[in-house]
Amino acid sequence: LRNGYPEVIYCEDKTTDEIKGIVEKMMERNQNILATRADEEVYEALKELTDDLEYYERARIVVIQKEEIELSESKILVMTGGTSDLEVAEEAAITAEVMGNTVERAYDVGVAGIHRLLAQKDKMAEANVIITVAGMEGALASVVSGLTDKPIVAVPTSVGYGANFDGLAALLAMLNSCASGLGVVNIDNGFGAAYLADSIINQIEAARE
Amino acid sequence: LRNGYPEVIYCEDKTTDEIKGIVEKMMERNQNILATRADEEVYEALKELTDDLEYYERARIVVIQKEEIELSESKILVMTGGTSDLEVAEEAAITAEVMGNTVERAYDVGVAGIHRLLAQKDKMAEANVIITVAGMEGALASVVSGLTDKPIVAVPTSVGYGANFDGLAALLAMLNSCASGLGVVNIDNGFGAAYLADSIINQIEAARE
Amino acid sequence: LRNGYPEVIYCEDKTTDEIKGIVEKMMERNQNILATRADEEVYEALKELTDDLEYYERARIVVIQKEEIELSESKILVMTGGTSDLEVAEEAAITAEVMGNTVERAYDVGVAGIHRLLAQKDKMAEANVIITVAGMEGALASVVSGLTDKPIVAVPTSVGYGANFDGLAALLAMLNSCASGLGVVNIDNGFGAAYLADSIINQIEAARE
Amino acid sequence: LRNGYPEVIYCEDKTTDEIKGIVEKMMERNQNILATRADEEVYEALKELTDDLEYYERARIVVIQKEEIELSESKILVMTGGTSDLEVAEEAAITAEVMGNTVERAYDVGVAGIHRLLAQKDKMAEANVIITVAGMEGALASVVSGLTDKPIVAVPTSVGYGANFDGLAALLAMLNSCASGLGVVNIDNGFGAAYLADSIINQIEAARE
Amino acid sequence: LRNGYPEVIYCEDKTTDEIKGIVEKMMERNQNILATRADEEVYEALKELTDDLEYYERARIVVIQKEEIELSESKILVMTGGTSDLEVAEEAAITAEVMGNTVERAYDVGVAGIHRLLAQKDKMAEANVIITVAGMEGALASVVSGLTDKPIVAVPTSVGYGANFDGLAALLAMLNSCASGLGVVNIDNGFGAAYLADSIINQIEAARE
Amino acid sequence: LRNGYPEVIYCEDKTTDEIKGIVEKMMERNQNILATRADEEVYEALKELTDDLEYYERARIVVIQKEEIELSESKILVMTGGTSDLEVAEEAAITAEVMGNTVERAYDVGVAGIHRLLAQKDKMAEANVIITVAGMEGALASVVSGLTDKPIVAVPTSVGYGANFDGLAALLAMLNSCASGLGVVNIDNGFGAAYLADSIINQIEAARE
Amino acid sequence: LRNGYPEVIYCEDKTTDEIKGIVEKMMERNQNILATRADEEVYEALKELTDDLEYYERARIVVIQKEEIELSESKILVMTGGTSDLEVAEEAAITAEVMGNTVERAYDVGVAGIHRLLAQKDKMAEANVIITVAGMEGALASVVSGLTDKPIVAVPTSVGYGANFDGLAALLAMLNSCASGLGVVNIDNGFGAAYLADSIINQIEAARE
Amino acid sequence: LRNGYPEVIYCEDKTTDEIKGIVEKMMERNQNILATRADEEVYEALKELTDDLEYYERARIVVIQKEEIELSESKILVMTGGTSDLEVAEEAAITAEVMGNTVERAYDVGVAGIHRLLAQKDKMAEANVIITVAGMEGALASVVSGLTDKPIVAVPTSVGYGANFDGLAALLAMLNSCASGLGVVNIDNGFGAAYLADSIINQIEAARE
Ligand SMILES: Nc1ncnc2c1ncn2[C@@H]1O[C@H](COP(=O)(O)O)[C@@H](O)[C@H]1O
Ligand SMILES: Nc1ncnc2c1ncn2[C@@H]1O[C@H](COP(=O)(O)O)[C@@H](O)[C@H]1O
Ligand SMILES: Nc1ncnc2c1ncn2[C@@H]1O[C@H](COP(=O)(O)O)[C@@H](O)[C@H]1O
Ligand SMILES: Nc1ncnc2c1ncn2[C@@H]1O[C@H](COP(=O)(O)O)[C@@H](O)[C@H]1O
Ligand SMILES: [Mg+2]
Ligand SMILES: [Mg+2]
Ligand SMILES: [Mg+2]
Ligand SMILES: [Mg+2]
Ligand SMILES: [Mg+2]
Ligand SMILES: [Mg+2]
Ligand SMILES: [Mg+2]
Ligand SMILES: [Mg+2]
Repeated sequence: LRNGYPEVIYCEDKTTDEIKGIVEKMMERNQNILATRADEEVYEALKELTDDLEYYERARIVVIQKEEIELSESKILVMTGGTSDLEVAEEAAITAEVMGNTVERAYDVGVAGIHRLLAQKDKMAEANVIITVAGMEGALASVVSGLTDKPIVAVPTSVGYGANFDGLAALLAMLNSCASGLGVVNIDNGFGAAYLADSIINQIEAARE
Repeated sequence: LRNGYPEVIYCEDKTTDEIKGIVEKMMERNQNILATRADEEVYEALKELTDDLEYYERARIVVIQKEEIELSESKILVMTGGTSDLEVAEEAAITAEVMGNTVERAYDVGVAGIHRLLAQKDKMAEANVIITVAGMEGALASVVSGLTDKPIVAVPTSVGYGANFDGLAALLAMLNSCASGLGVVNIDNGFGAAYLADSIINQIEAARE
Repeated sequence: LRNGYPEVIYCEDKTTDEIKGIVEKMMERNQNILATRADEEVYEALKELTDDLEYYERARIVVIQKEEIELSESKILVMTGGTSDLEVAEEAAITAEVMGNTVERAYDVGVAGIHRLLAQKDKMAEANVIITVAGMEGALASVVSGLTDKPIVAVPTSVGYGANFDGLAALLAMLNSCASGLGVVNIDNGFGAAYLADSIINQIEAARE
Repeated sequence: LRNGYPEVIYCEDKTTDEIKGIVEKMMERNQNILATRADEEVYEALKELTDDLEYYERARIVVIQKEEIELSESKILVMTGGTSDLEVAEEAAITAEVMGNTVERAYDVGVAGIHRLLAQKDKMAEANVIITVAGMEGALASVVSGLTDKPIVAVPTSVGYGANFDGLAALLAMLNSCASGLGVVNIDNGFGAAYLADSIINQIEAARE
Repeated sequence: LRNGYPEVIYCEDKTTDEIKGIVEKMMERNQNILATRADEEVYEALKELTDDLEYYERARIVVIQKEEIELSESKILVMTGGTSDLEVAEEAAITAEVMGNTVERAYDVGVAGIHRLLAQKDKMAEANVIITVAGMEGALASVVSGLTDKPIVAVPTSVGYGANFDGLAALLAMLNSCASGLGVVNIDNGFGAAYLADSIINQIEAARE
Repeated sequence: LRNGYPEVIYCEDKTTDEIKGIVEKMMERNQNILATRADEEVYEALKELTDDLEYYERARIVVIQKEEIELSESKILVMTGGTSDLEVAEEAAITAEVMGNTVERAYDVGVAGIHRLLAQKDKMAEANVIITVAGMEGALASVVSGLTDKPIVAVPTSVGYGANFDGLAALLAMLNSCASGLGVVNIDNGFGAAYLADSIINQIEAARE
Repeated sequence: LRNGYPEVIYCEDKTTDEIKGIVEKMMERNQNILATRADEEVYEALKELTDDLEYYERARIVVIQKEEIELSESKILVMTGGTSDLEVAEEAAITAEVMGNTVERAYDVGVAGIHRLLAQKDKMAEANVIITVAGMEGALASVVSGLTDKPIVAVPTSVGYGANFDGLAALLAMLNSCASGLGVVNIDNGFGAAYLADSIINQIEAARE
Repeated sequence: LRNGYPEVIYCEDKTTDEIKGIVEKMMERNQNILATRADEEVYEALKELTDDLEYYERARIVVIQKEEIELSESKILVMTGGTSDLEVAEEAAITAEVMGNTVERAYDVGVAGIHRLLAQKDKMAEANVIITVAGMEGALASVVSGLTDKPIVAVPTSVGYGANFDGLAALLAMLNSCASGLGVVNIDNGFGAAYLADSIINQIEAARE
C-alpha cells in the first residue's frame, strides 16, 4: 500500500520450505521483507536466497532490505517492565523501524522500582506514541498512562506462571486500566503493537506535510 | 491538562448526592464537565445546579458546557455493527465531541450485510481515526481494518447472549483480529475509546501546526 | 449404513499396532476405509497391508479405496480464512470426497482482504453447502453467511496464539455470529464438518431422485 | 430474499417504542413479520398496529401474517430433552413454520428415559432435518445422532444450575459429541436453529423440483 | 485399615528412586502393594525388589501381591464409552480387583451406538455398583443412570480435543446429568472411582454378614 | 420403580399452574410426592389440592404423604460446614427421609473449628453413607473423608462470594480431594446427593435380607 | 481467644431474625460484637437489643461495644486506588479498629495519579502493615509494594465492568505482582484483610513486651 | 535495602549466559546472592564464577554466600500437605533462611490424616508466621488457620491433575477459606511466600529491640 513499506510474512505455523517459497516470490517485487517469528533455521534458509538480510535473534525477525528506509520525524517509544519482556519488545521495535519509524527504547523500567520509571519522563515527552510491553500483572501500562497523555499501545506478555494463565492476568489488567488512553493488542503481539503505532505515526507525518 | 478540555466524572458506582457534590466543586473551576454513565435521576439532580447542561440519553452522558469547544480539523469516524451497539457508540461519539473532535457516524453497518459496510469507504478515507463498536462476534473490527490503514480503536460490546459471555466473544475476536492495526479497549468502554482516539487526534493536530 | 460409504478410523489416541489391527479387520469387509489424524508412521504401517492406499499428508488422512466412489451432483464448497487453516480444511475436503461428494475449494480468502472473498460469489452460488474454516477471530463464517443463504458448517481452528486460547476465540465468534444459518462443529474438527455437510447432501441427492 | 419469507425483528435489546416503529415500517412492504423474544408488552403494542397477528407466548414470538405460507414437503423434527426446554424449542418450531416448513414435535424425550426416545424412531425416519433442544448435560443430541444419519441442529439451553454455568455444560457436550453430524448453534438460540434447518430444507426443496 | 487391603503409592510426581525407596519400606509390612500411574521404568525398578509383581500396562499399575485377595460377592461393573477410555477404565478395574472386589467389564458401549449399550442390561442388573468411564461429551453416565437405579460412579476422561478442554466437557456433563444417582470423581481418576466403589461394596458386604 | 417410593417434581423452571397440574395427575396414582425447589406460593397452591402435605421451608420442599414410609436400618449422616449450607443440607436430608432412609444430622461442624468436627466421630462410625455439604473452600469433604472409610457424597454449595465464583471453588476442591472415596454432585444439588445416598442404601438393605 | 477481642457475625446469608437471635446470645457473654455485611434493616433490628451500638454505613458494619478497646502501638495503613473502593476499605479499617489496632487511612491515591501516591511515603514509613484496596486493574498493590518493604495485604475489589469479570482482573494482577511481599485475600474481603493484618500486629505487639 | 540481605535473581526466563552475566555483576557488590528456579546447568555455570556456592536441588536454588547470615529470634514454620509439594516448600524455606530467618519444617501433614496435622500444634505455637504449601484441594491452609491465630501465608501448588487446572483448585480454596487470617500468593510461588513471611518477621524483630 504505502511506499517503501515492507511485505510481511508470519513464520509461526509454516514449514521452512513454505516460508522460503513465499519469500522467493516476494523478492521478485523488490520490496523490503519482514519475516516475524523466524527461528535460526528459517534464517539459514533465507540466507540461501540473498545476502541483503539481517537476523534479529531476540526479536525473532529476519529483515531483507531492498529499498532505503526513510525514518519518520515522529517517534515511537517502546517500554518494558522487565528483562523477560525483551523478545516481545524487540519484535515491536524492529517491526516499527522497518516500517520507517524512529524508535526509542526504555527497557526494564517496571513499577516495582517506580523511580526508574519516573526517570523516563523526558523520553515520554518526546514520543508521539508509546508502546508498553509488560507481563505478570501488567501494571506498567496504567502507570505510564497516568504520567502522559500520549496514545499508548499496551502489549501484555505471557511472562509469568501460575495464576498468570499465560498472559491473561496482564491482558485483563490492561483492559481494565484506571488510566484511559490505552489500546490493547493480543498477548505477545509485538508486531501488532508496532503496526498500530505505525498507523498512528502515518497520520501524524501526513499532517506535518 | 489541555485547554478547553472537560473534567470527567464517572457516575456508575456513586450516589446521586456524591455526584452532585463532586460536580458542584468542579463547577467552581468553570471548565466544561462530562458526566458519563449518568441516568435520568443524575440528570435531574444536576439540572438543579445549572441550566447550561444537556442530557444525551442514549449515551447516558450529561454535559455542562462553560467554555466554547473548538472542533479539530482531523476526524474520528464511529461505526457500529448493529442498532443495539448504539449506546456504547454514542458514549464514544459524545465524549469525543466534548473533547473537541469532529465526529462522523456510520451506524448499523455490520458484516452480515457487507455491502452496506463497503458503502462507507469514503467516510473511512476521510477519517483519521476509526472507532468500531460491535457486539456478538465482533467481526466488524477485522473487516474495517482490512479495508483501511487508519488506526482503529475497537470496542467490544456486551450485546448478545449465551456463549457471548457478556462481551467476551467480541473481546477475544478483536484481540485476535487477522487484520493488524487495532487497539482494543474494555467491553462497553465507549469513553475509553474516545479518549484514546482523542489522544491520537491531539498528536495529529499538533503536527498540523 | 449407506452403500459405497467408507468405514472410518480416528487414529489420534491409538497406537500404530492397534490401528493396523483394526484396519486389517475392516479390510475383510472390502469397503473403502478412511483413516483420519494419521501421521507418516501410520501410513507406513498401513502400506504393509495393501497397495490401494493414498496418503493425504496435509489432511493427515490415509484412504484405502476398494470400491468406486460415485460423486454427488450437489456440491460442497470448502473455504478458509488463511493458509494456516489448510490442514483442517483438507481434512474436511478429503473426507467429503471419500464420502462421495463433489468438493470445491476456495482457500486463503479471509476477511482482512474482503475483495478476494467477494470474488468467490460464483462458487458460493453453485454450492449446496459451504464449509468455512477459520482460526484467529473466525470472522470468515459471519461474512460468508451474510453473502449467501446456503447452509454453512463453521469450523473454528486452533490457529493463533495468546488470547486465542487454542481456538476458543474463533469458536465463540462462530456461535455468536450476527448472521444466522451457521452450524458450528468442534475446534479443528474438519472430519465432523464434512460428515455434517455429507448428511445434508444426502438429503438433497435423495430429493433429486 | 426469498418469496413469502418473513422479515425478522429481534426484540431483546430494543424498547417497545423502537419495536413498534420498526414493525410499522416493515408493514409497508406487506410481507409476513416475525418478532422474536417478544414479551406481553410488545404484543400489546403491536396489536395496535394490526389485527392480523398471533402471539405464541411460550415461544415469545409475535407473527404478523400478510401472505399465505406454503408449507414444504420436507419435514423438520424438533425434539427436547425436558419440559423446561420448551421455550427454546417453540422458538425454533414457530420460526421454522413461519419460514414455510412442515414441523413435527417430539418433546420431553430426554435420555434419562431412553425408551421414550427410542419410540420416536419413526418420526426421525420421516424427518429431513432434526433440531435437538437440550439443557443440563445435553446428551440428547449425541444419542439422537447415533440413531439416525439425518443432519442434526443441536441447541444447548441454559436450563439447569450450578456447574451448568448457564448452558456451557450442554454447549460443550454438543460440540464434543462422539456421534458426528451435529451442527451446534448458540445457547438458547431457537431462532438460529430454525434458520439453519430452513436453509437446509431450501436446498432439498429446490432439488425436488 | 482393612485386612488384606493394599498399600497404595501414586507414582506421578515422584522420581523412580523415591518410588523404589517408598515401596521397599512398604514391603517390610508384607501387605499387598498397588502402584498407580507407573510407567515401564518404574516397573523395571520394582522388579529389582521382588518377583511377586505384575505390570498392568494399559492400567499403568504395578501390583506386588503378598497376601491372597478374597473377592467380594458383590460386583462392580466398569463401562466405557470408547476404546480410548480404556486406560482409565483399567486403572479403575485393576484397583478395584486388588482391593478385593469382583469386577465385570463392558467396554466400548458408548451412546453413539445405543443398542450395544442396551445389550448390557443383564450385566447392569447383576452389578451392585457401576463405574462409567467416558470422555468427549460424557453422555454414557446419564444414559446408564437412566437405565438402572444402582449407584453410579462417573469418571470423565480427558479423551478428546478442542472444546473438550482436557476433560472439562465430560466433567460438566456428568455433574449436570438429568438422571440422578451419579457421584462424579476427578477427570481421569480411575483409582478414585474404584476407591469409592470399593467403599460402597464394603458396606454391602458388611450387611451380608 | 421401588415400593413406597415418592414421585418427584422439580419446581424451579415451572409456573405454579404447571406444578399444580402435574401434582394433581400424580395424586391419582396415590403415591407419595416430593416437590423440590418449592417456594411459599407453590405450597399455598398445593394446599388447595390436599391436606396431607407438609412444607419444609428451609429445604424448600413440599411432601404429600399418601403411603407410610418405612425407614431403613442403614443410616445416612448429613454434615455441613456452616449455617449457611443449611438449605442444601435440608434438601438432602428431607429427600432422603421421604425416600425411606434413616437420617442423622451434624450441622455447622466446618474445618475452621476442627475439634467440633472430630467430636462427630461416633455419628460417622454409625453411618453407612455420609453426605458432606460445604461452600466456600469446601474442605469439609476432604477432612471427613480422611476420618472415615464410609462412602461420601460431597455437595459443594454456592455459599460465598468473590473468587468463590458461585460454588466453583468448593466444587473443584471436592473433585481434587487428597482423600479418596468421594462422589461429587452438582453445586447446591442436595436432592441428587440424597438420591445417590439412597441408591447406596438400597444395595445395603438388599444385602441385609 | 484474645482479651477484648470482638465476637464476629457475618450477616450476608442470614435473615434479620437469625442475626438478631445470634447477637442476643452473643450479648450474654458481654464481649464486643462486630456484625459485618449489615444493612440498614439489620441495624434497626439490633438497635432494639441495645443502645451501645454504632452503625458504620459505608463499611456495612454494626459494632456493639461492651468493653473498652485499647489501641495498639503498631499501625495499619489502609490505602485505596479510587473512591469506589471505599466500602471495602472501610470494612477493613473499622474491623481492624474494633480488633484494637491503630488505623491510618490514605484513600483515592491510585496509580493513574502517581504523585498523589508518592506523597504517602511518610504514612507508609510509619505503618507496620499496609492494606491496599483496589479494583479495576489493581496496580496499586504492586506500586505500593515497590515503594516499601512492609508486609502488604492486598484486597482486590469488584469495582469495574466488562473484562473486569467481577474482580478477577484485580485478583490476578495482585497474585502476579512483580513486586514481592503481598498476601492476597478474596475479592471484596475487607474483613479478611483486617483479620490478617491484625494477626501480624499481634505478633509485633507481643514482641514489644 | 536491608543489611546482609541477598540480591535475588529469578532464572526462569533467562538463558544460562544471561544469568552468569548478571550474577557476575552482582558479585562485585560482595553481597549474598540467591538464584531461584535454577536448574543443574545454571548451577554448573555459576560454579565457574565462585566456590562459595551451594545448590539446593529440590528447591531449585543456588546460594552464593559472601556475608554471614544472622538468624532471627522469630520463627517461620513451613508446612506441606503432601510430599509432592516439597519443591515449592523448599523454595520457601531456603529463601527464608538466606534472608536471615529461623525456619522450622513440618512436611507431609495434609488433612487426609488429620491426626498427623494435630500433632504439629507445638510447632505452630512456637512459630510467628506459618507458611502452608498445598496442592490438590488446598484444604491444609484452612485447617491450619482454624488451629492457630498466627499470620498464615498460603501457597497453592500446581500438584494434581484434571479438574485441578494447574493449581487453580488450590488457589480458589485458599482465597475462600472459611478461616480468616490467610494471605495467599501465586501458585507455586515459594519465593514470594518467604518474602512476605520475611517482611512480617522484620517487623517483629524490629519491635523486639
Ligand atoms: N464510561 C467510562 N468507562 C470507564 N472509565 C470512565 C468512564 N467515564 C469516565 N471514566 C474514567 O473515570 C475517571 C473519573 O473517575 P471518577 O473520579 O471516579 O469519577 C475519568 O478520568 C476516566 O478516566
Ligand atoms: N432469537 C434470536 N436469537 C438470535 N438472533 C435472532 C433471534 N431472532 C432474530 N435474530 C436475528 O436478528 C436479526 C434481526 O436483528 P435486528 O435487526 O436487531 O432486529 C434477524 O435477521 C436474525 O438474524
Ligand atoms: N433439587 C433438584 N436438583 C436437581 N434435580 C432435581 C431436583 N429435584 C428433582 N430433581 C430431578 O428432577 C426430576 C424431575 O424433573 P421434572 O420432571 O422436570 O419435574 C426428578 O426425577 C429428579 O431427577
Ligand atoms: N465480610 C466478611 N467476609 C468474609 N468473612 C467474614 C466476613 N465477616 C466475617 N467473616 C467470617 O465469618 C465468621 C462468622 O461467620 P458466621 O458464623 O457465619 O457469622 C467470622 O468468624 C469470620 O471468619
Ligand atoms: Mg494517559
Ligand atoms: Mg487496517
Ligand atoms: Mg446466510
Ligand atoms: Mg448421526
Ligand atoms: Mg439411575
Ligand atoms: Mg475416606
Ligand atoms: Mg515491598
Ligand atoms: Mg487462624
